[in-house]
Amino acid sequence: MVGRAKIRLFVDDALAVGNSVPVGRDHSNYLFNVMRLKAGDRVSLFNGKDGEWQAEITAAGKRQGALRCLSQSAPLRMPPDLWLLFAPIKKARTDFIVEKAAEMGVARIVPVQTAFTNSERIRQDRLQAHAIEAAEQCGGTFVPEVSELLKLSDLLTDWDLDRRLMFCDETRAGGVSTLDPNATGPWAILIGPEGGFSDDERDRLHAMDYTTVVSLGPRILRADTAAVAALTLWQSTLGDWR
Amino acid sequence: MVGRAKIRLFVDDALAVGNSVPVGRDHSNYLFNVMRLKAGDRVSLFNGKDGEWQAEITAAGKRQGALRCLSQSAPLRMPPDLWLLFAPIKKARTDFIVEKAAEMGVARIVPVQTAFTNSERIRQDRLQAHAIEAAEQCGGTFVPEVSELLKLSDLLTDWDLDRRLMFCDETRAGGVSTLDPNATGPWAILIGPEGGFSDDERDRLHAMDYTTVVSLGPRILRADTAAVAALTLWQSTLGDWR
Repeated sequence: MVGRAKIRLFVDDALAVGNSVPVGRDHSNYLFNVMRLKAGDRVSLFNGKDGEWQAEITAAGKRQGALRCLSQSAPLRMPPDLWLLFAPIKKARTDFIVEKAAEMGVARIVPVQTAFTNSERIRQDRLQAHAIEAAEQCGGTFVPEVSELLKLSDLLTDWDLDRRLMFCDETRAGGVSTLDPNATGPWAILIGPEGGFSDDERDRLHAMDYTTVVSLGPRILRADTAAVAALTLWQSTLGDWR
Repeated sequence: MVGRAKIRLFVDDALAVGNSVPVGRDHSNYLFNVMRLKAGDRVSLFNGKDGEWQAEITAAGKRQGALRCLSQSAPLRMPPDLWLLFAPIKKARTDFIVEKAAEMGVARIVPVQTAFTNSERIRQDRLQAHAIEAAEQCGGTFVPEVSELLKLSDLLTDWDLDRRLMFCDETRAGGVSTLDPNATGPWAILIGPEGGFSDDERDRLHAMDYTTVVSLGPRILRADTAAVAALTLWQSTLGDWR
């Protein structure tokens, strides 16, 4: 028998012994109508700051309810100081990239506008909701922030020189296929758009001291595949998979 | 300027200098209606055996057309002798796993029925079409075979002892996070269903001499994420990404 999946909810409220947590309309519908939980049943809560908490349902109404925090079941586990920078693509694949980044463990997700990026807008709130849902699903206690769309050129101009950049350039030979396990510290991974980078962008990225150009094999990967592959290489060499 | 994406088509026909390749209804619609190609225009062809060929359109009709092979533009590049075994999940994520496996480079894709697999049927033809589409997209010259749904227990009973198994067990501690780069030869990767494996399945897999239990980090990955992560670890350590 497969046990019923553990219900984990992200909330905005502070979590501590005895704290009361109100349940709004969306969560009430999910908990009390869809999952049919009742007063006395338990769920797990996390808020990205206080770890994971067991909570008991103290009120279960159609449109609202309440929970009471009982005890911490897991401490806050921060991901490594790793950012994922990616150029937004088609909606479904952009959603996937955000979901995958949250599952794989990043601190920040940054949609970037490149010379060949078509979409000039993103729905930051929708992408942030995807990151929350992925954290609920994967057992994480942290939710990476999804930033607004930033111009790659601006990002590079203001780059913090202490943060290394793993640049996944699929069009030029000469990249390494493994990272240096001693190159610890803050990192960012940059995944290109489907149309690739412009020559100017490539030249600039290759010329920067903090850039490591990494190869992701002999086939051309879609952006969402490349994101997971790059995160795997990084996490297994420099991150919390070691 | 982004160049127009190169059109690559998988065909069943033999490819050699001067060979004529008929274009059926589906490809005619795509080439001549959607992409508006005309006689004299060029496309790339591959059939999984003869590498990639440049071909010229010699006839462009509404429902049929013809191509003539000009010259080979890339040799056949076989992937490593790696299988991906996975338990089918929801339709969209199953499609993604097949797409990702073809992109990442596997020889064979095997849907397996485990104790906790819900789906007792797969559409092998649809999954095979996804593998072909992924190969067209990623620049590959090989298309992995998608097998019919096989029972995991039967597969393990008939297992070829020369083929090592990378078992991604997310529920038990003690797995390694890196593979032995000297363990070359045929391999298979096994990704579990969302509900995990049964205790019997786990015990059996852990007890087998050819099994390497691998950890994919401290968070629980969805099956499609786990597939790409496992393929990345394998390809970068033992495969053609080195």
